[in-house]
Amino acid sequence: MPSNKFFNRSIISIRDFTIDDFAYLFDLTDKIQSLTSNERGEIAKGLILGYIFYEYSTRTRLSFESAMASIGGRSLGISNIDSSSIMKGESYADTIKTISLYSDVVLIRHPSDGSSRYASEISDKPVINGGSGSEEHPTQAMLDIYTIFKEKKRINGLSIGIVGDLKYGRTVYSLIYGLSTYDVDIHLVSPSVLKIRSESIDDIPNNIKMFHHTELTDDLLKKLDVIYVTRIQRERFPDLQEYKKIQGLYTIDENILKRSKPDVAILHPLPRVDEISPSIDNTTNAVYFKQASYGKELRSALLSALLHENPF
Amino acid sequence: MPSNKFFNRSIISIRDFTIDDFAYLFDLTDKIQSLTSNERGEIAKGLILGYIFYEYSTRTRLSFESAMASIGGRSLGISNIDSSSIMKGESYADTIKTISLYSDVVLIRHPSDGSSRYASEISDKPVINGGSGSEEHPTQAMLDIYTIFKEKKRINGLSIGIVGDLKYGRTVYSLIYGLSTYDVDIHLVSPSVLKIRSESIDDIPNNIKMFHHTELTDDLLKKLDVIYVTRIQRERFPDLQEYKKIQGLYTIDENILKRSKPDVAILHPLPRVDEISPSIDNTTNAVYFKQASYGKELRSALLSALLHENPF
Amino acid sequence: MPSNKFFNRSIISIRDFTIDDFAYLFDLTDKIQSLTSNERGEIAKGLILGYIFYEYSTRTRLSFESAMASIGGRSLGISNIDSSSIMKGESYADTIKTISLYSDVVLIRHPSDGSSRYASEISDKPVINGGSGSEEHPTQAMLDIYTIFKEKKRINGLSIGIVGDLKYGRTVYSLIYGLSTYDVDIHLVSPSVLKIRSESIDDIPNNIKMFHHTELTDDLLKKLDVIYVTRIQRERFPDLQEYKKIQGLYTIDENILKRSKPDVAILHPLPRVDEISPSIDNTTNAVYFKQASYGKELRSALLSALLHENPF
Repeated sequence: MPSNKFFNRSIISIRDFTIDDFAYLFDLTDKIQSLTSNERGEIAKGLILGYIFYEYSTRTRLSFESAMASIGGRSLGISNIDSSSIMKGESYADTIKTISLYSDVVLIRHPSDGSSRYASEISDKPVINGGSGSEEHPTQAMLDIYTIFKEKKRINGLSIGIVGDLKYGRTVYSLIYGLSTYDVDIHLVSPSVLKIRSESIDDIPNNIKMFHHTELTDDLLKKLDVIYVTRIQRERFPDLQEYKKIQGLYTIDENILKRSKPDVAILHPLPRVDEISPSIDNTTNAVYFKQASYGKELRSALLSALLHENPF
Repeated sequence: MPSNKFFNRSIISIRDFTIDDFAYLFDLTDKIQSLTSNERGEIAKGLILGYIFYEYSTRTRLSFESAMASIGGRSLGISNIDSSSIMKGESYADTIKTISLYSDVVLIRHPSDGSSRYASEISDKPVINGGSGSEEHPTQAMLDIYTIFKEKKRINGLSIGIVGDLKYGRTVYSLIYGLSTYDVDIHLVSPSVLKIRSESIDDIPNNIKMFHHTELTDDLLKKLDVIYVTRIQRERFPDLQEYKKIQGLYTIDENILKRSKPDVAILHPLPRVDEISPSIDNTTNAVYFKQASYGKELRSALLSALLHENPF
Repeated sequence: MPSNKFFNRSIISIRDFTIDDFAYLFDLTDKIQSLTSNERGEIAKGLILGYIFYEYSTRTRLSFESAMASIGGRSLGISNIDSSSIMKGESYADTIKTISLYSDVVLIRHPSDGSSRYASEISDKPVINGGSGSEEHPTQAMLDIYTIFKEKKRINGLSIGIVGDLKYGRTVYSLIYGLSTYDVDIHLVSPSVLKIRSESIDDIPNNIKMFHHTELTDDLLKKLDVIYVTRIQRERFPDLQEYKKIQGLYTIDENILKRSKPDVAILHPLPRVDEISPSIDNTTNAVYFKQASYGKELRSALLSALLHENPF
């Protein structure tokens, strides 16, 4: 097994990781699932995940808390900085410094680009970016790619569609950068008002083939091995009619499945609203709940690797 | 020892359980109290209780968290769904499904009847009803009956008074259904405006003797082995005068104790306001704090039985 | 090693402790830091810290949660009593009694003097005062004195300056009473409107030398081995100009350090606003983050001693 490159390391951007890093992490994620809960519960005994959420994210918080708990560690922190009046007037640097003194690893969610990188320079302990600014959510991208790998048994050679709001969703950018370390075709499908910000994907290596679409045509659907769906938020549209029209065009349902490859895998970072019809939840194509479940497993493995040079 | 019928089973309604189930659980509750904290702390190592409270209930949440912690497990979740904006727009089914992926057992408090039953059909893990709708709070009824059993060394043959607001308190209905598996006399005492909803006790077996009263008369008090007191909420009365009159009539104090059996046991699900005078807290009749304490023990035993076929 | 006087004992006021108690606790704090996280994580297995905060204090809560987690225990409770509607109408006594039934040790933060003492009479478990009224915050004082001891290798014979808002800061009073068990010079430095309340230090033994100042003069700075800085809150000043003038006079920065003893130790209970310039954070004089870190260690040791006669 290759050596652990995650030990004592901050997880700031998906761009900081290589294909070998992913391979190591995915392998560890497989292995942790074969432990008994008793064995797992020994890994992080007496160790603490400290978190600060400058934006609400119940799902990210619970996924990490669950991951940490399953390896025997504890989580503590501030789930909503607004409700923590005592911190008022304190600098961001002091808050980060303090939480790092109480913890063995620090999780931060913050609306600003660069907030996690800066935190990692201040913190005494490794920092995990739990979503920052408009582009970075590295652990989400890791679990998305892990999910594709588990479903398809490979990443290279796949055609992957990313559908919905590509302009505002930070997970999309992290996912594309993560996928760009592999040899894949990426098909970006969005209404023109929600097109990906071209300046944000400028740094992607040229060898990656990216195609832009505005519709889920039969031609395209026949190609896709994976469809990664994101939420389209009503607030992005000044006109409700316009929203409804687009929402309808992109909803993944039985009709879309019929026109797709039989084994197409449907992913979604959740929560969903209307982007995927619940009527397909019980098909083998629906992978989004499995994906959420892998989030717990991958984060357990990641935390184990961060905390111990020889994780287990 | 009889086999564990609780393993991997959802706890939805008190009506789903038999007198043998209660006997098994009460026995396990006795046994768990004889373990050292160190032994207890091994039972649920690496295991997680996920909770979602669609209604506030600090007491139920803390009692379960405490139970889970004492057996070495962790609790995580959402203590107030309102404050969790990220969940907005997500369906109840998706929220339940997601929390079940992060947990080994799921606790739900919800204002609607049937919410827990529905959740148990969606969840990948056993569901515990932590109070739903107008009638169900099964674990409260279990601990109430356990408390009576511990105090009186039997249930059969007892005369049990249930006093106060019998119309709106969901614990009352669960308790009556739970007691109906035994051979007891039940005396229901309430002002007529807070009388029990007859349609809600229609399914109770005929063999149970239920008597309706509007006052705590000397005759009645002489009969009762147990008085189970519930809160009378001021909001139920349009007229403050009316409220005060009734509140006064039902308050359990030294005067009531003097008129009762010397060994009458006073129970209350807590929190209390004025229904029981603090002046009797130190009498041997006052069992309500012991009852809260048994809540932790019984829930520890219940969680152990849910999580392991051979609990400990 | 002297016997454990903390076992099963409530921590209400710094005045209840002797110099020998401090010596025992400081020794235990040193020792706990030499354990592995695995060894530490066994100390409080299956044990619970229950907390109730009638005032917000994220820092005190996280420090205790972190301490309890690092010794393998769990924390649960109410971080803000306002948000806990279920408790409304319940008496303080009933709330304390109930939380004590769910816990092995109870932590309380409360705005009223005497609230913790009263709680310790009701609670079935030892109570820790996490800050009460205008004068008491015993564990903060313990960690402050421990920090001085670690930095200076002694307490006796030191000259200690306490600077800033001496009128309203409860930590100041606890610190002075704690220090009064040693042989030290205490220099109190504040603007006259924020002078220490003389009635609150009336009980301090006469042997302690206390000096009052309104400025950090060169003469004074040359004497001080330790400068303990507290926050000056803008709200205390009707006039913004007045506030700014005073704030400027007391800010600890490079200029102050130049005029001080080369090895002066700067302490602050945190959070800071402008009282200490971040430009000195990386000097060896800046001890305030180390102090926060000692908070976790000392509280781990204290909790261990409260919970076990032979802590580890």
